[in-house]
Amino acid sequence: MKMMLLLLCVGVSLAHDLTTSAQLKDIEERLRATEETLKELKRENEALRIFTKASSDTLESIQAENKAKKVAFSAGLLASGSQKIGPFEARKTLVYQKIFTNTGNAYDSNTGTFTAPVKGVYFFRFYAHGHPFNQVAVSLLKNNQIQCSVFFLKPETNANGSNGVVLSLEKGDEVYTQLWENSWVYDDESSYTSFSGFLLFPL
Amino acid sequence: MKMMLLLLCVGVSLAHDLTTSAQLKDIEERLRATEETLKELKRENEALRIFTKASSDTLESIQAENKAKKVAFSAGLLASGSQKIGPFEARKTLVYQKIFTNTGNAYDSNTGTFTAPVKGVYFFRFYAHGHPFNQVAVSLLKNNQIQCSVFFLKPETNANGSNGVVLSLEKGDEVYTQLWENSWVYDDESSYTSFSGFLLFPL
Amino acid sequence: MKMMLLLLCVGVSLAHDLTTSAQLKDIEERLRATEETLKELKRENEALRIFTKASSDTLESIQAENKAKKVAFSAGLLASGSQKIGPFEARKTLVYQKIFTNTGNAYDSNTGTFTAPVKGVYFFRFYAHGHPFNQVAVSLLKNNQIQCSVFFLKPETNANGSNGVVLSLEKGDEVYTQLWENSWVYDDESSYTSFSGFLLFPL
Repeated sequence: MKMMLLLLCVGVSLAHDLTTSAQLKDIEERLRATEETLKELKRENEALRIFTKASSDTLESIQAENKAKKVAFSAGLLASGSQKIGPFEARKTLVYQKIFTNTGNAYDSNTGTFTAPVKGVYFFRFYAHGHPFNQVAVSLLKNNQIQCSVFFLKPETNANGSNGVVLSLEKGDEVYTQLWENSWVYDDESSYTSFSGFLLFPL
Repeated sequence: MKMMLLLLCVGVSLAHDLTTSAQLKDIEERLRATEETLKELKRENEALRIFTKASSDTLESIQAENKAKKVAFSAGLLASGSQKIGPFEARKTLVYQKIFTNTGNAYDSNTGTFTAPVKGVYFFRFYAHGHPFNQVAVSLLKNNQIQCSVFFLKPETNANGSNGVVLSLEKGDEVYTQLWENSWVYDDESSYTSFSGFLLFPL
Repeated sequence: MKMMLLLLCVGVSLAHDLTTSAQLKDIEERLRATEETLKELKRENEALRIFTKASSDTLESIQAENKAKKVAFSAGLLASGSQKIGPFEARKTLVYQKIFTNTGNAYDSNTGTFTAPVKGVYFFRFYAHGHPFNQVAVSLLKNNQIQCSVFFLKPETNANGSNGVVLSLEKGDEVYTQLWENSWVYDDESSYTSFSGFLLFPL
């Protein structure tokens, strides 16, 4: 009787061992698969991280470019009142003092000079207004070189001239307008004589 | 004999138990490592998700800004024919009716007024054409304030004047041109007298 | 005595089996949880991948648009010296030869024609300068249609006229300026007579 019980116990134990073996084999396999998938996911995450980082860097450069693009100014000749400027014996830089806009602070109303804050392509234009019989002659210069001009020898009535140009500038290039020798411009609070410019795109 | 068999069985069973123990310990360790890695990956994914979401929000704001930037109009004075406008006893808003472009529909050809659709920096310019001996005087206004002007007292020949300005506008600000009292402008199908503007960048 | 030892061994073995069962059950559960989390992470990664890919595509299109936006030119009439152009018996396209800027190479200094490299909204302006008593008449044309003009019948002094327009162009549209019949323009190294244009935004 005791012998029978013992055999039964051992039998059960052995059967149990066989089940355990099968379970272990199954778990082993699933664990190996899981470990493989994890490695794969890690590689994927690493790729995603690199990709996302690159995208983020590009985004930042786009944002920086968009921010750097915000350069524009416009100024009338006189802050107030009315006045003739000129004539002078030599060329004279016009200093526009009534600031309409100066986003990016690239225009200096103490000197009349715009200094390119970034390498890029810019648009500039100026308007010059004169009174009868006075020569009106104004040029736009880049680093001391004339780019474009307006000229009236002896207007019979008011002179209203303008010119403008698109320029590729290096950072630090200077753009300003000059009144020629023996010339005059006039302005009052209606702002006939003005100077404007803005960045089109960085290069 | 039975006794020997029993001992063998028990022996095998015990040996099996020892192997199982070792396997279990190994599995246990690998499973713990796997669970750790999983937690790590989850944290990484969460970080990636947050980062990617932020990038996506930035992208959307860039796209929205790029879309909002598409504001530009240009209009000639007359839709057809030829006509002198003026003189009037008081200032009169010029209503340019020949639409060249009106992307963003910010210019209203019924009123001659451009209404800023977004806060930003804009460029405007206008051209005024006159006939001999008629005073030509036009200003560009922002919310009823003169910004810049063109003026010919008594041109001996055709008057061709222009002016322009870069303005910082709040959303809803109004920009338009006005003919001064006792002044005239002329236009025909060649479009000498025109008004244009465009957004440079939102602020 | 042997019987007691056997019973002990079997007892230990059975106890061991019970512990193994519990451990296996625990491992089984943790493994199932791990497998679930892995599936979840895979779904998340797939979503992240799709999302990141979409963001990247958007980024690329923004970059492509930003690159395509870099279109601007500006040219004075004469490469050097001074010269009157005209009068001619028929309209004649003005060929501006002094290149200030030509980013995107859309302006051809052999023909005086700007050809739109992309569908979009563009700004153009030109300046025309004349001498006393000569008719100055210049128009800006798009595909052979006059868009805007400047006209001086018989200036008593120098004529300084300008006009400009914002145009929606299809890719390939041509923009240029023409001198009218019996008209003259003058230019020298100060560049009074010029033509400029730039893309505001693609459509």
